[in-house]
Amino acid sequence: MPIAFVTGNASKFQEITAVIPGIVQLNLDLDEIQGLDPKIIIEHKLSQAATQHDGDIIVEDTSLVFNCLGRLPGPLIKWFEQSLSNTELADLVSRFPDHTAIASCTIGYRPQGGSPVFFTGSVTGTIVPPRGIVSPFGWNNIFQPLGSALTYAEMTIAAKNTTSMRGQAATQLQQFLSQSHRI
Amino acid sequence: MPIAFVTGNASKFQEITAVIPGIVQLNLDLDEIQGLDPKIIIEHKLSQAATQHDGDIIVEDTSLVFNCLGRLPGPLIKWFEQSLSNTELADLVSRFPDHTAIASCTIGYRPQGGSPVFFTGSVTGTIVPPRGIVSPFGWNNIFQPLGSALTYAEMTIAAKNTTSMRGQAATQLQQFLSQSHRI
Repeated sequence: MPIAFVTGNASKFQEITAVIPGIVQLNLDLDEIQGLDPKIIIEHKLSQAATQHDGDIIVEDTSLVFNCLGRLPGPLIKWFEQSLSNTELADLVSRFPDHTAIASCTIGYRPQGGSPVFFTGSVTGTIVPPRGIVSPFGWNNIFQPLGSALTYAEMTIAAKNTTSMRGQAATQLQQFLSQSHRI
Repeated sequence: MPIAFVTGNASKFQEITAVIPGIVQLNLDLDEIQGLDPKIIIEHKLSQAATQHDGDIIVEDTSLVFNCLGRLPGPLIKWFEQSLSNTELADLVSRFPDHTAIASCTIGYRPQGGSPVFFTGSVTGTIVPPRGIVSPFGWNNIFQPLGSALTYAEMTIAAKNTTSMRGQAATQLQQFLSQSHRI
């Protein structure tokens, strides 16, 4: 049975399957508990998903931390985006001296009947006024990785995957699966 | 059987039992789902609590919205407080022209075997640099109700209860319970 990536986001599935071919997308309606720790949120989702699906499961969580706001928004970025436009998010950060941000992606992998393993990729960047095509990844057009002249929304998927937090985490999982002969 | 107020916060219990005598405090470990809508969060908690306790149940959620930040933090205020000190929260708001905030308390009451009913109290105020004793209600010392010269942290519980969002919501519930002959 193929590994199931639990997500309703086709673009996230596309980015991860580009690194780990053979996985399938599984759309389940899971509760998301509150918190600032992606691992706790993912572990809760993996446990729920395991009651609804037999086989190995992957769950992903993406965080964005504005360094001027402590650990915020972190995994709460989706609620920031429901409340504020990207222009307003960039405006918020611009009111502080520090415009840097850390984008992280944590992937939890739960082998059937086993305990979850986690893989995290992180990229440091700067929050800038929106530039580039609006994408299914809400804040792509205000995040410019350090050392790049482009926001994520101005890059191709291939270019983004070579450096992105999601590409890094997916590559770590791919290596783990390959070394443990699961793929 | 007395109505059980599910909370781990003794001070919240004290404020509500001052308005609705005869309720008991019940400490259950409940998951809190993410979101900006207190009613959805409360309904989820009430359903969980009902699987662990027989009898009528009360769950409360307190929100704080900074008007400069759309609907934020709202019910996510507890995570803002885990990330930023009250001085930092006040500093954040001070960077915008609009310093007003809305403090809300929603109480959900679930009669045994029945559907939940909700009561909400709201108070408009201003976010100010911390003044007054630090209390178990984290942001009490940076919230100054409109028309008052004092922050909530500078008031007595009795004075606060006459105007507070929690006092308003508790009074609505008390009237509902009294009119339906449940207390």
